[in-house]
Amino acid sequence: MCDDKTKGDKSILIMNHTLAHILAYSLQKLFPSIKLYIGPATEEGFYYDFKVPNISVSVDDFDDIKKEMIKIIDLDLKISRSETSFVDSIKGLDDEKGEYKKVILNEIVGKDAVVSSYKMGDFVDICEGPHLSSTGSASKHFYIDTISGAYIRGDSKRDMLQRISVISLGNEKKLKVFLKNRELARQADHRLLNKELDLFVLEPNIIGPGLAMLTENGTVIKSELEFLATEKERRFNLLRVFTPHIAKEKLFLKSGHLPYYKEDMYPPFKIDDEDIYLKAMNCPLHHYIFSRHNRSYREMPIRYTEFSTVYRYEASGSLSGLMRVRAITQNDIHIYSREDQVVEEFRKIIQLHKEYYNLLGIKSEDFFLELSLPDDNKDKFIEDDSEWKKTAEFIREAVKLENIEFKEVQGEAAFYGPKADFQVKSAIGTVYAISTSQVDFAGTKRFDLTFVNDKGENEKVYVIHAAPLGSYERTIGFLTEHFVGAFPLWLAPIQVVVMAVSDKFQSYLNNVFAMVSVEFVNNATRGIRCNIDKSDERLAKKIRNSTRQKVPYIVVVGENEEKSNTVSVRTRGSNKSVSMPLEKFVQMIKSKIESRDINL
Amino acid sequence: MCDDKTKGDKSILIMNHTLAHILAYSLQKLFPSIKLYIGPATEEGFYYDFKVPNISVSVDDFDDIKKEMIKIIDLDLKISRSETSFVDSIKGLDDEKGEYKKVILNEIVGKDAVVSSYKMGDFVDICEGPHLSSTGSASKHFYIDTISGAYIRGDSKRDMLQRISVISLGNEKKLKVFLKNRELARQADHRLLNKELDLFVLEPNIIGPGLAMLTENGTVIKSELEFLATEKERRFNLLRVFTPHIAKEKLFLKSGHLPYYKEDMYPPFKIDDEDIYLKAMNCPLHHYIFSRHNRSYREMPIRYTEFSTVYRYEASGSLSGLMRVRAITQNDIHIYSREDQVVEEFRKIIQLHKEYYNLLGIKSEDFFLELSLPDDNKDKFIEDDSEWKKTAEFIREAVKLENIEFKEVQGEAAFYGPKADFQVKSAIGTVYAISTSQVDFAGTKRFDLTFVNDKGENEKVYVIHAAPLGSYERTIGFLTEHFVGAFPLWLAPIQVVVMAVSDKFQSYLNNVFAMVSVEFVNNATRGIRCNIDKSDERLAKKIRNSTRQKVPYIVVVGENEEKSNTVSVRTRGSNKSVSMPLEKFVQMIKSKIESRDINL
Repeated sequence: MCDDKTKGDKSILIMNHTLAHILAYSLQKLFPSIKLYIGPATEEGFYYDFKVPNISVSVDDFDDIKKEMIKIIDLDLKISRSETSFVDSIKGLDDEKGEYKKVILNEIVGKDAVVSSYKMGDFVDICEGPHLSSTGSASKHFYIDTISGAYIRGDSKRDMLQRISVISLGNEKKLKVFLKNRELARQADHRLLNKELDLFVLEPNIIGPGLAMLTENGTVIKSELEFLATEKERRFNLLRVFTPHIAKEKLFLKSGHLPYYKEDMYPPFKIDDEDIYLKAMNCPLHHYIFSRHNRSYREMPIRYTEFSTVYRYEASGSLSGLMRVRAITQNDIHIYSREDQVVEEFRKIIQLHKEYYNLLGIKSEDFFLELSLPDDNKDKFIEDDSEWKKTAEFIREAVKLENIEFKEVQGEAAFYGPKADFQVKSAIGTVYAISTSQVDFAGTKRFDLTFVNDKGENEKVYVIHAAPLGSYERTIGFLTEHFVGAFPLWLAPIQVVVMAVSDKFQSYLNNVFAMVSVEFVNNATRGIRCNIDKSDERLAKKIRNSTRQKVPYIVVVGENEEKSNTVSVRTRGSNKSVSMPLEKFVQMIKSKIESRDINL
Repeated sequence: MCDDKTKGDKSILIMNHTLAHILAYSLQKLFPSIKLYIGPATEEGFYYDFKVPNISVSVDDFDDIKKEMIKIIDLDLKISRSETSFVDSIKGLDDEKGEYKKVILNEIVGKDAVVSSYKMGDFVDICEGPHLSSTGSASKHFYIDTISGAYIRGDSKRDMLQRISVISLGNEKKLKVFLKNRELARQADHRLLNKELDLFVLEPNIIGPGLAMLTENGTVIKSELEFLATEKERRFNLLRVFTPHIAKEKLFLKSGHLPYYKEDMYPPFKIDDEDIYLKAMNCPLHHYIFSRHNRSYREMPIRYTEFSTVYRYEASGSLSGLMRVRAITQNDIHIYSREDQVVEEFRKIIQLHKEYYNLLGIKSEDFFLELSLPDDNKDKFIEDDSEWKKTAEFIREAVKLENIEFKEVQGEAAFYGPKADFQVKSAIGTVYAISTSQVDFAGTKRFDLTFVNDKGENEKVYVIHAAPLGSYERTIGFLTEHFVGAFPLWLAPIQVVVMAVSDKFQSYLNNVFAMVSVEFVNNATRGIRCNIDKSDERLAKKIRNSTRQKVPYIVVVGENEEKSNTVSVRTRGSNKSVSMPLEKFVQMIKSKIESRDINL
């Protein structure tokens, strides 16, 4: 019934239900006084919550637990299901040992409920099931991962239990890949890397949770992305506009964000007796810039973009580093389009994503577009069946023409139109939702967004919302993890560090620094970002410091270099130094920066 | 006593008191049923409020009024002062004609008050005085300016009167200059020019008063200024950082902005039960970025800059176009400096101002620095005499070394240190306060801003606050008025408009457009901003449209141009077209944009 090699997702779930019982059985053998609570399973593993009076189970017990579990699997015990009434189930439990099982049973509504249990050997546990038919069908390729504290139902006023978590994916290969990727993701965690890279500062207590500040290093990345976006602006005929971060309540009532989006917005404050909101989106403001003139079909489409911060309320528990924040800064695009232009404009948005992804080393197989459509919840979506169908079809058509991977889901649309989320798999295997686009059919009615068509009639405007670079906060977090902190040269906050083998070569060192850090034309905003290390540290320590900060090039100069007007260059990821003429080194770096080369 | 040629300010005020009575006397002669109210005088003129039952005085009466006034001056009537008790004054007034005079008398506190009046010929009017000794001493070089409606005490629930306003500066030359400058300022009013230039949108009713949005045209100017500032950043070693627009109340209590600056800040709103404020300044946030590390004397100074929007409450009545707004976007600099570096760093800030002013055509004689020191109000300023003295002296020293014009005033300092306002005289003669810098000695205590000096001890940090480009909103408003809408090429939203004499030359027109609007390297953000006019209008109308928008170059192509691969170029301000090779034209524009040439 259950096969260790190729299994559908559901069969892994069944196996993990069974393994959870095998874990509990093993714990009971090792710690007879144990009080078991609950052991839910997923497709990636399971955990079990329990308490052993006067004993704290620890990682030191993991080997014994695993041995005991393997023993039970090897015994290939038959598993059988039985059903009893709620009342009989409660009765069957020992008052002492069954304490937490009673908690579960008492949560089952109605005394006439039927409770199912599964039995293996002399172990019985409540479970909805299904289970495998015998313990021998379970995979031995599981990994006992952690032991931690866990309150009953997460409620700190109730008993604290222990929780053992196990990873189990059905076979050895998947387990290995999972553990390896998890370790990579752990090392790549942008919050952890921030200690060395010094990209952002969070001061939740005095400034506020989710309100990230970027240091000079983090701001370099933001500026480089902005500079890139500015170049694309011109290529894609995007016109930059600028709007305030606050507006009257009236505006958001008109746009429909109040009430549709209210729970994501901050509460208002009063100015001159009127309620003022922080903007959670730029669109209603852009609509007013668009509609300041009457528009002719000849002018369409009009494409606005703004680099601005919007403010969205996220529960403080869900905030995380730069990845989930309350201040979201994006280059936010709104394209005001005729109906016959929507598909072509949406294609351009996809193309813009592709161009960005290409520069960031994200291959076409590593991203896909998820189209979100409305579900039946009439409070969440504007009612207009034909427009929902039409606009979804526009997106499908654009996606087909651009030939990118594509999924459809129900219920996650914007209230004003279908939503297309770009999902990106990073170099370390994690999938991130980076940016989202929508085709909006509701703006016309709410903001009178029309143009005069070639027959002289007023015609409806469709608005495409897009932010291809996502939010700077999240994108900087993503890129940090994607590159595990080793940013490509053009994004690296510090591109070169120069140092001398001893103080005797300070004057040549200064020359090298001046030469490398000279401005150059194409990227006049920054030139080459070069630091000079004149600290009192020993050379080896200086090299280690810059290596830890993942600086792309470390340049060392000494007697040989001074004599021959060369530099000794250590490229990130290599332990060897290569000698080259100073001028050649500068030229090489310039050219790599200008072409935004992903490799050093 | 009173001389028509050279007079001090006070004597003009005395003369204008007299002229106000001469105006009232004239009105009484022309409109015998007149009820006079009040006629205050300033150094620039005076007005008189009155009502003539059943008659509306209009501009058509100005000639007669002026004639009557001149007649009274020519009569050289003796002016005498008399004093009567309040009670006698009231008694002396006719119930009907004296209605509004009674309003004034009743505002005088106390029935034992003495009321002074001035008499000329058979005309008597209440006035504190002093007056000239006879009407013949008054200048005839006044200008009857406007007639308008005016409520008693500005209260719309009281009677509406008429108000005649007169400009009078003592001599003909001053009057001419004043009227000419006022006409220039009127034509230069950025709110008026915005109708053609289309730089910004205000939607006070739905978005909010003082919350300006920049159109694609206005945003070009902002972007060009930002791009310029980004270049300067590198030259002046400014490090860009990025912070949110909101923070907890705690932060502003710590900084002292609450309570010192509370009335200029917006009221708070609640997140997770804490009071959150919109930032009215960036400094407290930058302080946290600075102090994330321990700092050594070797690292100092550290210079941060941020392009961000701060929010300040201004009474709605004081708001005006882009000049006085509630959302202020600036490139805001904070320099963390050792004591021995403050003068040099402040000099650099002055130099940065000079460089900007030079590019904007503001000569050194057209700006000055106003140093604001604290007055005795202990609630407004942190108490620390020696620090106030020391920091003011730093500024004086820097100013002396940079050799710029300089004034000192009391009472307008920041609460944390002396303030230096840059005041600029525009090309049309108006003086604008563009930017402000401060030397802050209080941050150290409040935010523990210290560095470790060469003796290993913690030492105090001084913070220089500066925003040399001012706020983008105000600076764009200022530049619009300064250039009367005729922006230099590098700032012009549209730099070139190309058009053809007829449809036959569309293909060459397209070539010209493609050639002109091609990207070029140094200013990759924009290239040449070129529009193509393909409208159905006649050529003359097309030229007029672009002329009205003050486009620097209008390019027309026809048969000759197509044959010879040339363009016919009409430079703004000239009615003549000049023929030149297309390539030469593009080269000329590129070079002017790259050098930010102020002239076309």
